[in-house]
Amino acid sequence: MTYFVFCIHNHQPVGNFDSVIEEAYQNSYWPFLEALSRHPEIKLSLHNTGFLLDWMAERHPEYIELLRGMAASGQVEIMGGGYYEPVLSVIPEVDRLRQVAMFSERIEELFRVRPRGIWLAERVWEPTHPSIIRGAGLEYLVVDDYHFVKAGLEKDELGGYYTTEDQGNLIKIFPGNEALRYLIPFKPVESFEEYMLCIKNGFFRRGNAAIYGDDGEKFGVWPGTRKWVFEDGWLERFFEAIERNLDWIRPSTLGGYLDREEPVGHTYLPNTSYMEMGEWALSAGASREYMRVIEELDRLGETGGRLRRFLQGGTWRNFLAKYPESNWMHKRMLMVSSELKRGPRGETQRRAAERLLYQAQCNDAYWHGVFGGLYLPHLRTAVYENLILAEDSVLGKPKKAVDISASDLDADDHEEVIARSPDLGIFLSPFNGGAVFELDYRPGGVNFQNTLTRYQEGYHYKLEASGGGGENGGAKSIHEVVKVKEEGLLNYLRYDRGRRASFIDHFLDEGIALDDLYSHTYRELGDFAWKKYEFELFPDRVVMHRAAAAYGAGCTVRKTLSMDGGNAFKMSYEVVGAEAPNGFFGVELNLILPACDGPLCRYESNADLGGGGIGLGSRGRTEGVESLRLVDSWKGVALSIETDRPATLLRHPVHTVSLSEGGFEKIYQGSCLLFLFPCRGGDGLAPSFRLSVEGLSG
Amino acid sequence: MTYFVFCIHNHQPVGNFDSVIEEAYQNSYWPFLEALSRHPEIKLSLHNTGFLLDWMAERHPEYIELLRGMAASGQVEIMGGGYYEPVLSVIPEVDRLRQVAMFSERIEELFRVRPRGIWLAERVWEPTHPSIIRGAGLEYLVVDDYHFVKAGLEKDELGGYYTTEDQGNLIKIFPGNEALRYLIPFKPVESFEEYMLCIKNGFFRRGNAAIYGDDGEKFGVWPGTRKWVFEDGWLERFFEAIERNLDWIRPSTLGGYLDREEPVGHTYLPNTSYMEMGEWALSAGASREYMRVIEELDRLGETGGRLRRFLQGGTWRNFLAKYPESNWMHKRMLMVSSELKRGPRGETQRRAAERLLYQAQCNDAYWHGVFGGLYLPHLRTAVYENLILAEDSVLGKPKKAVDISASDLDADDHEEVIARSPDLGIFLSPFNGGAVFELDYRPGGVNFQNTLTRYQEGYHYKLEASGGGGENGGAKSIHEVVKVKEEGLLNYLRYDRGRRASFIDHFLDEGIALDDLYSHTYRELGDFAWKKYEFELFPDRVVMHRAAAAYGAGCTVRKTLSMDGGNAFKMSYEVVGAEAPNGFFGVELNLILPACDGPLCRYESNADLGGGGIGLGSRGRTEGVESLRLVDSWKGVALSIETDRPATLLRHPVHTVSLSEGGFEKIYQGSCLLFLFPCRGGDGLAPSFRLSVEGLSG
Repeated sequence: MTYFVFCIHNHQPVGNFDSVIEEAYQNSYWPFLEALSRHPEIKLSLHNTGFLLDWMAERHPEYIELLRGMAASGQVEIMGGGYYEPVLSVIPEVDRLRQVAMFSERIEELFRVRPRGIWLAERVWEPTHPSIIRGAGLEYLVVDDYHFVKAGLEKDELGGYYTTEDQGNLIKIFPGNEALRYLIPFKPVESFEEYMLCIKNGFFRRGNAAIYGDDGEKFGVWPGTRKWVFEDGWLERFFEAIERNLDWIRPSTLGGYLDREEPVGHTYLPNTSYMEMGEWALSAGASREYMRVIEELDRLGETGGRLRRFLQGGTWRNFLAKYPESNWMHKRMLMVSSELKRGPRGETQRRAAERLLYQAQCNDAYWHGVFGGLYLPHLRTAVYENLILAEDSVLGKPKKAVDISASDLDADDHEEVIARSPDLGIFLSPFNGGAVFELDYRPGGVNFQNTLTRYQEGYHYKLEASGGGGENGGAKSIHEVVKVKEEGLLNYLRYDRGRRASFIDHFLDEGIALDDLYSHTYRELGDFAWKKYEFELFPDRVVMHRAAAAYGAGCTVRKTLSMDGGNAFKMSYEVVGAEAPNGFFGVELNLILPACDGPLCRYESNADLGGGGIGLGSRGRTEGVESLRLVDSWKGVALSIETDRPATLLRHPVHTVSLSEGGFEKIYQGSCLLFLFPCRGGDGLAPSFRLSVEGLSG
Repeated sequence: MTYFVFCIHNHQPVGNFDSVIEEAYQNSYWPFLEALSRHPEIKLSLHNTGFLLDWMAERHPEYIELLRGMAASGQVEIMGGGYYEPVLSVIPEVDRLRQVAMFSERIEELFRVRPRGIWLAERVWEPTHPSIIRGAGLEYLVVDDYHFVKAGLEKDELGGYYTTEDQGNLIKIFPGNEALRYLIPFKPVESFEEYMLCIKNGFFRRGNAAIYGDDGEKFGVWPGTRKWVFEDGWLERFFEAIERNLDWIRPSTLGGYLDREEPVGHTYLPNTSYMEMGEWALSAGASREYMRVIEELDRLGETGGRLRRFLQGGTWRNFLAKYPESNWMHKRMLMVSSELKRGPRGETQRRAAERLLYQAQCNDAYWHGVFGGLYLPHLRTAVYENLILAEDSVLGKPKKAVDISASDLDADDHEEVIARSPDLGIFLSPFNGGAVFELDYRPGGVNFQNTLTRYQEGYHYKLEASGGGGENGGAKSIHEVVKVKEEGLLNYLRYDRGRRASFIDHFLDEGIALDDLYSHTYRELGDFAWKKYEFELFPDRVVMHRAAAAYGAGCTVRKTLSMDGGNAFKMSYEVVGAEAPNGFFGVELNLILPACDGPLCRYESNADLGGGGIGLGSRGRTEGVESLRLVDSWKGVALSIETDRPATLLRHPVHTVSLSEGGFEKIYQGSCLLFLFPCRGGDGLAPSFRLSVEGLSG
């Protein structure tokens, strides 16, 4: 008997737009299940992530209803997992267990069956996973055959499942077949039949199963697949092909297979995920080099194939080193998780906070591959909203009007400072320029500092080589034709000198041009931005200071953050020794609103912002600015910035350029605001800022 | 300032011969420390593993005395670690913490300093290590730059230490410099000075330190190094070279460096060890292919170098899949650890048992690279002795004369059976031929089943290609000149069909030849050996049975293990349906004595063993054997085998052929005993065995 073991995973990230999920449902999730239900001989292990399943239960109870029947008949095995699809290895142990248990309970509630298998988010495997998975009460999973090849096994040994263990905790692991992932649903059904015949005729030295485990979105959500899979009848023909051959093909769930068949061996998988993840997780330089090496292997033919067997890229955790913003979210998530564990609140409140935290652990916003991930502000917004609200609910209002403390949050071996008032949470890094890295409006769950730095990506060279892509893209090599979602993207390809935080201190030329600011090609005449500040904590304020040089001479910057009522704070500067008649002391802020640069966001100012417009995407230079208000009337929140003296304001939107399944695209990541104060020399330079946040009614 | 950060690790495996340790002490450990003490400006982070340190404290208190002074002066930083140098990832969590804490306490007792850094055994890194290490109270370590390259970093970014974390637990990691590992102590001192100059002149984009972390045995223990390092004065010149350049070279310990300098970045290392370990941990086929690929890369020149950056072999845990004997030891270790945790005994006894267990966790016997490791019977003997004695001390005498239970010990997804009497512990695998995989004499801490199967190794092809090596080795390619410790090794290069266990059931030809048995080229005419037996447990016995085929017809083998007093057991067979007038039913045992095939071991028998000799290394065919006694007068223990009827006995020693630093060598791994009973057809075949163990006085 030759088995066809079929497993599908459907997922939508927490924070995704409702319309996008609805489209995926109509184009894929529903028609797939409906078609399957008409072929009861075809067995399936099915994983819908918790967020999606809850969405379905609310919007499309007919899906749950149908699936319940198929689960009851044994046609479909329901797979468990972390409720909100976290990368298991990087969330706290207790949260892992709770998320998996919560999801198992939810599955039991909806389908009256308890899952035995787990879908492993992004197939990110670490050697301690058997203990985690057994600890969470589950027994088996499918990853890629790639994982097994990295353990030294050969493709023809991967026709069944293996045992593995950690600390003696045994689980069973299935190698998902790469050849099948390319066939289903992309090739004519005949290719699948041929492949099954090849297995029947003894392709595998070990095992007798064609094991498929992949994303359900390939059936209808991916470009072109809806037509191919459903309208053109691929899926129907696929199911019929299996049904025609039931005399030798036995369709099976993962659980059904291992109840019948012995393991084919024992192995230990290394710390890896699917192949592409290895490329994505590397730093830009290494990633580009890795792509080159892969191309080189292709040219080497058979030798290349043999080399490829031992090739590996980076590992998932490295995203936390690659993107400091991802690291910061991650460490804040750990912080909230530990606050929650200490939290003295009642059971109901704890449960609610827990659910918010777990939503914030959803993997998508923490990394970037070919889907937007970290580059999508709305996903990060959802992470922060969930974290801030969870934290607010656990911490409650601070007992003191101001609560200031320091600890190393982001694992850079230096303490950050946390200043909280009833409505605000401010996170400063003295080590990194004494800048603000998070600015929370706690009642609204908004982090105005949810910006993203413009980093080089390994794949950017493709855009550069294509001259920007598109028809007017200039010279192109035939290897470098790239898809772009709009033209002129090269104009946006700029890299930043440091993190896009707020209260970054510059010493600049009078002539600082908006374009130079934008391109980070301006001349820095001081030694303060992103550099280490000493700091002192007081009950009501934080004083940070740095003695270094500006305009070639010794200079000291001292800045004091103090709370000003429940919803405001001040940043007061004392700059001593900046002697430059034509110099400007510049304070740079980078901020983002929940509705980004959309029509519901605008600037308001005492000064006329001029012809550039008042949207957050506007750019320009304005003299005499004393107040600037960033209003988000979608979320109903406004951030006001007031200076104690008129400033020259340079502002521009910050866009990143990243690759998605549709091609290169630019994404708005916040607005840069540079407040300039003339250095008239001497000791008199002491500008101060007051920032306040208010919720807007209606 | 350019730093030279110096870290050395000295290690001897638990169970190693006293004379070997003494030699290493005289040739390396002592002269090195003594020389260092005369150069107080040269700083060193020094790790001696617990077993070695205890040995020194007992045999050479002058070492401890001298080192104490150097630690007090700050010249030497004492590094911590697991007391008996376990691979941290594969021992139970509690044991990790206890082993590290015990060792830190011991260091404090001996040297009055508490370690802050850890030496990571075999540099086996897993992503959860930061939690383990911080949990154990330590803060930093050095691994190879290779680990960092696998994380995507480039060599010129590795001039300082990085932060990393797991679950928010921050530790600091140093990349040990590969170039230095090749220079020190192998190249003239001038090469070292040139390299330091190169660093001074800005080789590193990140950091300012030449970081060395490697084995102390390279200074005097490795072949030829004693003369070079000490007699020819390399070490003295090396220290002097540093002293001459103290104006720009700052010698430093690991701890001293990080107290002064900032981290150069944040990263996440993948699951890896040093480069060679990647080759060794792969299965034979994959390992050979990996070696080929490395050779191919060398031929590809610059391209090869770029490819190599992303090349990785296997991971340490895979040794447990590669060698079932290693897996078995590991799982028995986990079992004893968990018995110990449940153990109701008093504190003193628990502590003593704990120490035995931790000694059994010493890494060396569990794997094999270029040192013998798993291939060395005396190291495995030490593991079993420690495990059995620890277990015996915790379990005490069984309350019942016989205690029989079943559980899946070795993570093969099938239950093994454990039968214990006051003096014996017998471990059977019904799934694997119903054979005995461990046979413990509990009071003596002896496992007579501590044999090793002859497996193919990836490097065996080198011996084959060389025609056996040595002068009479036949045809050789110039790439394949290999070192051998003796000639004729090809005659020993045989691979086994299954594990070298006991009570493996064969159906054979009358003409079964000793050579065929030896070479595993005999014809198996039944379907029982290493196949699945059903089993039933009774309070006083285990019944295993298998219905399959022998001599082309249906046949059933039923075998019953029952205890016979405190120090003996019976294995009684009932063979039904073996119809072959000239056939033999064969029961194969493979056994080893603690003193192996040495002069203190001998066979005794009712029959004349003939001209082959009576040593355990003897071979031959003997008729009419009814009793066979294996006597070890070194350990003072004897194992008697009695049959209820005369048998024909075929016996031969089992040697493996493995690679060590001195070249290929053969190692005795036990003796194969095949008891043959004629199949006179019909139902009457019911031979039985009685095995008993006794301690010998004196």
